Amino acid sequence: MGYKMDLRELLEKVAKDVDKFIYENLVGTPKHLYDAALHIIRAGGKRVRPTILVASGLALGGEYARLIPYASAVELVHTFTLIHDDIMDNDDFRRGVETVHRKWGVPVAITAGDLLFSKAFEVPTSSELSNNVHDHLSSLRAVNILSRAASIVAEGQALDMMFEEKQMVTESEYLDMVYRKTAALIEASSAMGAVLAGASEEDVERMKRYGRNIGIAFQIKDDILGIYGDPEVTGKPVYSDLREGKKTLLLIRAMERGSVELRKRLQQVLGNRNASTKDFEEVAKMIEDLGIRRETELEAYKLAEEAISELNSLKGVKRPEYIYALKELATFIVSREK
Amino acid sequence: MGYKMDLRELLEKVAKDVDKFIYENLVGTPKHLYDAALHIIRAGGKRVRPTILVASGLALGGEYARLIPYASAVELVHTFTLIHDDIMDNDDFRRGVETVHRKWGVPVAITAGDLLFSKAFEVPTSSELSNNVHDHLSSLRAVNILSRAASIVAEGQALDMMFEEKQMVTESEYLDMVYRKTAALIEASSAMGAVLAGASEEDVERMKRYGRNIGIAFQIKDDILGIYGDPEVTGKPVYSDLREGKKTLLLIRAMERGSVELRKRLQQVLGNRNASTKDFEEVAKMIEDLGIRRETELEAYKLAEEAISELNSLKGVKRPEYIYALKELATFIVSREK
Repeated sequence: MGYKMDLRELLEKVAKDVDKFIYENLVGTPKHLYDAALHIIRAGGKRVRPTILVASGLALGGEYARLIPYASAVELVHTFTLIHDDIMDNDDFRRGVETVHRKWGVPVAITAGDLLFSKAFEVPTSSELSNNVHDHLSSLRAVNILSRAASIVAEGQALDMMFEEKQMVTESEYLDMVYRKTAALIEASSAMGAVLAGASEEDVERMKRYGRNIGIAFQIKDDILGIYGDPEVTGKPVYSDLREGKKTLLLIRAMERGSVELRKRLQQVLGNRNASTKDFEEVAKMIEDLGIRRETELEAYKLAEEAISELNSLKGVKRPEYIYALKELATFIVSREK
Repeated sequence: MGYKMDLRELLEKVAKDVDKFIYENLVGTPKHLYDAALHIIRAGGKRVRPTILVASGLALGGEYARLIPYASAVELVHTFTLIHDDIMDNDDFRRGVETVHRKWGVPVAITAGDLLFSKAFEVPTSSELSNNVHDHLSSLRAVNILSRAASIVAEGQALDMMFEEKQMVTESEYLDMVYRKTAALIEASSAMGAVLAGASEEDVERMKRYGRNIGIAFQIKDDILGIYGDPEVTGKPVYSDLREGKKTLLLIRAMERGSVELRKRLQQVLGNRNASTKDFEEVAKMIEDLGIRRETELEAYKLAEEAISELNSLKGVKRPEYIYALKELATFIVSREK
């Protein structure tokens, strides 16, 4: 393997091995509960978080076979949050299939999420104990990082629900929510990889900041695509975020800094089912004219750059080809069109 | 301290220290999420599971301060299952207070349960890591036992919901569900205590069987009290299990072995809102006349005796006064009137 590791190849390999590990370990009765728990995993997904964990771990000298159970655990936690979020948001579809509560009902969906959550801790610890891994301290630290992230995600979910009811959300409140709901689990993924590789405290912190920065950049880019993305590319309905009146970073900025006229237009149009595509186009243009689109895009790029500079300052890199892949990922996150 | 340890005194001490630990460690924002998560804990409860963990651990030479974080974790998992169960059963009250979803709504209740679940793993691992505990293997094993139990509880919950829809449930299906939904977490409590005390594999297994037996005995006794308990003592409405048509062990036996007449009466009366107290009295008497009450009571006693004989066969007892308390608990569970 050379200096470069193709990101797409790595994503595919990790996805294959993580899925295999999950399917082998999530077996039990009653069958419908396990079917419900695995439904969203079977429906696809890129396994970005597991890949971040694996690449972070391999880059710092970790062992592939030991990383896979924890990479799977991160995906199980992520999927559990999706199942419970879909219940709360009353969403009908996810990854092109019916949501779990729509297919099996709310009680089974709650329980299926709970099962994935417990399996996220059961499966990697069982694997460690039966494979005679001797470094129990790093296992315990990985469990601690993952459970801490899951607590922060729950806080983020609660904040997100609060904000839906709130008239005004400030930029810093919003970014704090994004950190908790989205970035915390990505930060945990890169940190767990480093810890399981036996990295120094400083390198663990650097990997953690890498994950946090790309996690926040990811959500900001999502907010931009929610208004300016090409519906044919993103697969989402045109102006869906504006239509739903979602308080994205761009919207918060527009409400804070826009003219009286823009703010009035926004209040008329946001979340208004009768507003036309032309109305949304107009509002999107006004936000762009304020420089908010450009400025927000630059911020996402800056976060990706900061993430990359964290990688550049790592001291204990053993396999630089995986650092290359992590850099590619940071760049991909902010340049993607969907 | 002599050979005897008063069970009530121990329950009170553990409850005080576990509650203190939980309140100190479950602090965060948004405040309403933490209030919702702590609501059922604040409403009371005897902390039976934490006490089992602590007594099992102390009996086998464990250290009190190290056991408390895991004892708290078991209570957090237990409470999380109560919050989610109340949503699924649409119950309005628990421990004399409004249920979490009734007070804060379903989305907050789901998230509050999720938060307790993640804290159950975060809090003891953080405590170990910051207190410089060196026996990381036993910590990892405790995490593994707790997460495995939580998976089994989720399976038990799914089975319980399935049985509500099912016409016929066999005795062995029912007992398997009871093991998963109720006994698995009690079994985990005694096993975790033993593991954290550094007990031998054989003693861990014995403690595990102790917990499993009293866990099943507990539910069987509950089923008996659900029909023959004194409403003034239990605090539950008279014949509530019959009124709700709950498939308890006694009911399953009556349906399996009763006369054609009894089975017909049961089908008329069970879960029938128009049935009178006299109807239920009659049915309860018919079940008793078949010998089912007596036989089921004897079985609960036999399970408690088996649990006690597991304790008697322990090899590594360091502090017998805690074995005494565990025996008292086994006896209490099957002789209680509420």
